Amino acid sequence: MSDTDQPIRQLLAGYQAAVHAKDVDAFVALYADDALIYELWGTWTHDIASWRAMAKGWFEFLGDQRSVVEASDVKTTVSGDMALLTAFLTYRAVDADGTELRSLDNRLSWVARQRGGRWQVVHEHTSVPIAHADGKGMFKKP
Amino acid sequence: MSDTDQPIRQLLAGYQAAVHAKDVDAFVALYADDALIYELWGTWTHDIASWRAMAKGWFEFLGDQRSVVEASDVKTTVSGDMALLTAFLTYRAVDADGTELRSLDNRLSWVARQRGGRWQVVHEHTSVPIAHADGKGMFKKP
Repeated sequence: MSDTDQPIRQLLAGYQAAVHAKDVDAFVALYADDALIYELWGTWTHDIASWRAMAKGWFEFLGDQRSVVEASDVKTTVSGDMALLTAFLTYRAVDADGTELRSLDNRLSWVARQRGGRWQVVHEHTSVPIAHADGKGMFKKP
Repeated sequence: MSDTDQPIRQLLAGYQAAVHAKDVDAFVALYADDALIYELWGTWTHDIASWRAMAKGWFEFLGDQRSVVEASDVKTTVSGDMALLTAFLTYRAVDADGTELRSLDNRLSWVARQRGGRWQVVHEHTSVPIAHADGKGMFKKP
């Protein structure tokens, strides 16, 4: 880890912690107020308000389950006050005993900006590729 | 259009022109040699070599059809030698008479870098959201 990409990787650690804690405020604080989000599920675009609502609904849906987020193939590029992070994420839903109930993989792109000394995500894009054969999402990375 | 975001928007114009012309070399020249691509269809990740093969296969598949790419909601952010472009793209396949045969929408994220005075795409992410109900891609923006 270089000094320059450390804040960007810390955003990812903050994301993992906020999701695990089901902490809506900590989750939303990772994103700039003017963030534009292209999300995997159901909606073409989110702004920060609908993104907060998504997080609230997601964490409530989990009930006493938790979502454990693992990242792989994390790559970062930092130039001045702008940065790119790409990664594959695996989301594992676990019950109160830590038993895995289900999982899915996706692809994450983050663009972050540093404003007032603080790095935040200004753009997120998550997806899975679509199979030509049936038009369905491919939820497991080979 | 500002002076700073003009080169980024020119990349998009170059993309539209290369696709319309089915010009593999012009298409690939928009991307850096170390570009990382998360594409809508079938594959988790492309490097520049497999991306060239994708373009070749796509343009050959079109035969005497052409693909007309329209962009909407184009947003750009430029900081120094790094830039972000987000947009919705509509791909319309038209036959030799210009009659529309099919179309689909997607979401585009580009991160570009300026190296040696030249802007190129270093990361592309295209996708459609996935419907919760059936796990299928939603190919039309509402």
